Amino acid sequence: MPGDAYHALERRFRRLLTLRDAQAILHWDLATMMPPGAARARAEQMAELEAIRHSLLTAPEIGDLIAAARQDGELTLGQAANLREMTRLWRRATALSEDLVVALSKANSACETVWRTARPAGDFTAILPRLEEVLARVRETAAALSEALGVSRYDALLDEYEPGGRSEDIDRLFADLEDFLPRFLREVVEHQSGQPAATRPNGRFPIDKQRLLGVRFMEMLGFDFAHGRLDVSLHPFCGGSSDDVRITTRYDESDFTSSLMGVLHETGHALYERGLPEDWRGQPAGEARSLSLHESQSLLVEMQVCRSPAFLTMATPIMVETFDGSGSDWTAENLIRLYTRVKPGFIRVDADEVTYPLHVILRYRLEKAMIEGDMEARDLPAAWDEGMRRLLGLAPPSPREGCLQDLHWYDGAWGYFPTYTLGAMTAAQLFDAARNADAAIEDSVARGDFAPLMAWLRDNVHEQGSLKTTQDILVEATGRSLDPEVFKRHLRTRYLS
Amino acid sequence: MPGDAYHALERRFRRLLTLRDAQAILHWDLATMMPPGAARARAEQMAELEAIRHSLLTAPEIGDLIAAARQDGELTLGQAANLREMTRLWRRATALSEDLVVALSKANSACETVWRTARPAGDFTAILPRLEEVLARVRETAAALSEALGVSRYDALLDEYEPGGRSEDIDRLFADLEDFLPRFLREVVEHQSGQPAATRPNGRFPIDKQRLLGVRFMEMLGFDFAHGRLDVSLHPFCGGSSDDVRITTRYDESDFTSSLMGVLHETGHALYERGLPEDWRGQPAGEARSLSLHESQSLLVEMQVCRSPAFLTMATPIMVETFDGSGSDWTAENLIRLYTRVKPGFIRVDADEVTYPLHVILRYRLEKAMIEGDMEARDLPAAWDEGMRRLLGLAPPSPREGCLQDLHWYDGAWGYFPTYTLGAMTAAQLFDAARNADAAIEDSVARGDFAPLMAWLRDNVHEQGSLKTTQDILVEATGRSLDPEVFKRHLRTRYLS
Repeated sequence: MPGDAYHALERRFRRLLTLRDAQAILHWDLATMMPPGAARARAEQMAELEAIRHSLLTAPEIGDLIAAARQDGELTLGQAANLREMTRLWRRATALSEDLVVALSKANSACETVWRTARPAGDFTAILPRLEEVLARVRETAAALSEALGVSRYDALLDEYEPGGRSEDIDRLFADLEDFLPRFLREVVEHQSGQPAATRPNGRFPIDKQRLLGVRFMEMLGFDFAHGRLDVSLHPFCGGSSDDVRITTRYDESDFTSSLMGVLHETGHALYERGLPEDWRGQPAGEARSLSLHESQSLLVEMQVCRSPAFLTMATPIMVETFDGSGSDWTAENLIRLYTRVKPGFIRVDADEVTYPLHVILRYRLEKAMIEGDMEARDLPAAWDEGMRRLLGLAPPSPREGCLQDLHWYDGAWGYFPTYTLGAMTAAQLFDAARNADAAIEDSVARGDFAPLMAWLRDNVHEQGSLKTTQDILVEATGRSLDPEVFKRHLRTRYLS
Repeated sequence: MPGDAYHALERRFRRLLTLRDAQAILHWDLATMMPPGAARARAEQMAELEAIRHSLLTAPEIGDLIAAARQDGELTLGQAANLREMTRLWRRATALSEDLVVALSKANSACETVWRTARPAGDFTAILPRLEEVLARVRETAAALSEALGVSRYDALLDEYEPGGRSEDIDRLFADLEDFLPRFLREVVEHQSGQPAATRPNGRFPIDKQRLLGVRFMEMLGFDFAHGRLDVSLHPFCGGSSDDVRITTRYDESDFTSSLMGVLHETGHALYERGLPEDWRGQPAGEARSLSLHESQSLLVEMQVCRSPAFLTMATPIMVETFDGSGSDWTAENLIRLYTRVKPGFIRVDADEVTYPLHVILRYRLEKAMIEGDMEARDLPAAWDEGMRRLLGLAPPSPREGCLQDLHWYDGAWGYFPTYTLGAMTAAQLFDAARNADAAIEDSVARGDFAPLMAWLRDNVHEQGSLKTTQDILVEATGRSLDPEVFKRHLRTRYLS
């Protein structure tokens, strides 16, 4: 039986996470519903809630309670995991001085504002002073966290998104991919050039029909509309909380294919959130484990399942029926080719499954060098272009299509990028293990029945919450650590056979 | 120059009201967007924010800061008003023990839950024990507040909704109306029976067209969609905050007339919120003054303006155009008759302008007797029916159409009802004064130009915020205290001429 200190911590963290959930709805509202004139007032509301959460987490008694909870009474495995996660959050929050937190937040806001105009103008010079300020504060933050957590500066930042993540593992995994992908990419491009060209269905696709199509597949995948919504925002995301999961998309009336796959991607995130352990709601142990695991769930649904020939063959008649499609654009063969077309490009968010990791590797290398002081912000455009040429054989015409394209760094999110590709590899490995564990999964997906797959994911991933480490969850589910061979095998099967 | 204590209070109340605005959006979301399965989680979020606001308001240092701010430095008139409002909120919050607040809140929740089924079943017996519990806690609350504020028990509750309101004034005003209305009602019913019957336009009125019609009139009235929205909820309301005003309606596809007038009513509330003094945003002095003044703004727009022959004559062609209407239902004459039809009925929210005050007078008398201990909850159905017969000449067939119809009491809102009719009288008096002050108002309204009227309301009501008392705002705007003669003259002109 745990003592009073543990229970006091549970109460405190329940309050913290309840406030976080409230903030998540306010953020969703900001992105989907809020009238533009409310921006300043909403920023104040968010800042106030942030400040209250920070003061609840860093209150002097928390450290004492944590120390007491360790001594005082016997904890179950779950409670021990919960205390470990509480400790992790508290350590990160107390490692930084109030002044540094405020300085970083101000630097981020100022830089993000300039980025809104500098990006479309492709004007790196205009943003450089702001980026230098952000980088200076990020380095200070990394140094303070590194000191407190006893890991490298990069890993100290990475840990926010990927608890327990280590750059030495990422270096190894990414070196393997970097060795494999450029050559593989050339083979795929050549292979696809010998196939019929994929054509995008032409026409006007009304938003309400696109929405209904998205909802139909969401329901097929198991999205529960009693606990969630689908709405529209400029940048699609999955927000809200486990009992109120809110995903968004954006619609293009001349192309339904992109929004549809976006909805399926966010549905993967949503099913993870929704499937987190009910018994640990409102406690750190009940939270999503890491961004790599989160992204693995969206990419498992999008890349592993919904871009597969089996799914697209089942889905084609539904798309045809929704939009009254006819002709050669509307065959399963064409839609499969369309959804697996590989073409190197400048923009990460438009990239296919094969080139995407190369975009990520480039960013990972650059941010690591900048955080560790081996590179300065002013050297970014040249280093970016050099990397793009080496990895993708492309030279961006301007920083707009180069180092200005992603908001992350300009808004202070450093150590985030590698989680995308860790997620892609994890998705391949989990889907492979799921099919090996339950032979019914492959056939049922082809019939539009996702129950067997989702049952496996719920048991092996969703319900684990943060009760174990990412590494332990993966090893228990698949029998091994993250192994790029599974991802490479998936790519070979899909793109060269 | 005020001293540090005053500024510390301003900072504290800014935080409080920022949190209140965040809660208002969460409440709006609950009523318009939230999936049903999120109800429990949302209730926790609201309770947590409520608890934080309560602890910010009742922190031990606040009393000292208020005492110091009174001594320390010279305050402007606005700052003095702000300090007065802060003191009022603090006094009310500290008058009640934590235990009593929690007990009342629990009693309300339990009773409100039973009401959801007892009302449709018309089953007063089922809810009586819960209502008795609510009433017991409400009486305790009234006693504690009465002690702290030095006013009667009823007035201590009334003060939450109507700061400075006194039941001796309400008794006098309502006695006057009670003397006038039943006889007047008989005259109007007889007068209208000699006129052609009003007919409701028949047809199917698609929701998107009804919405566009509502938006068109909202824009005409000056609603700013850069700072607000129109959405759908089961019970229409005006929520959000001054920079983000969110009104709702509900649509009936077989009748557009009811939703339209509902939208115009909420638009009146919205224009008041939006017009509150910019310089006092986030401070108690910048808040809406009282519920009677709030309701006066919605009723001024709905009853005084939008049900007037001048407005409806201007609006008829727009309705005809929107729905392709034709025939005798679609003439201005018929729509004016429809929107001013008087017919005694059981249900307050469906009541017309003439009978509505009688519904309110009944509720006021009963709640006052119950709060003061002159009547028990078990006697409510009989007293209700007796009052309905006396005031409106009707006997409700069951408590469903009687004392169970309104949520207010069952959810702990006691002392609220009179503000509806104070608002109706105030609306008549303000509109009368506005037309006397600016001769252009009458003609411009008939042309669909609301700028002169809104300019007068902004100067005389909206921008006053809570810088003065309701009484002072009314006297400065109209030259006198609330005078039922103006309301009675309005009714005679509209319904008997």
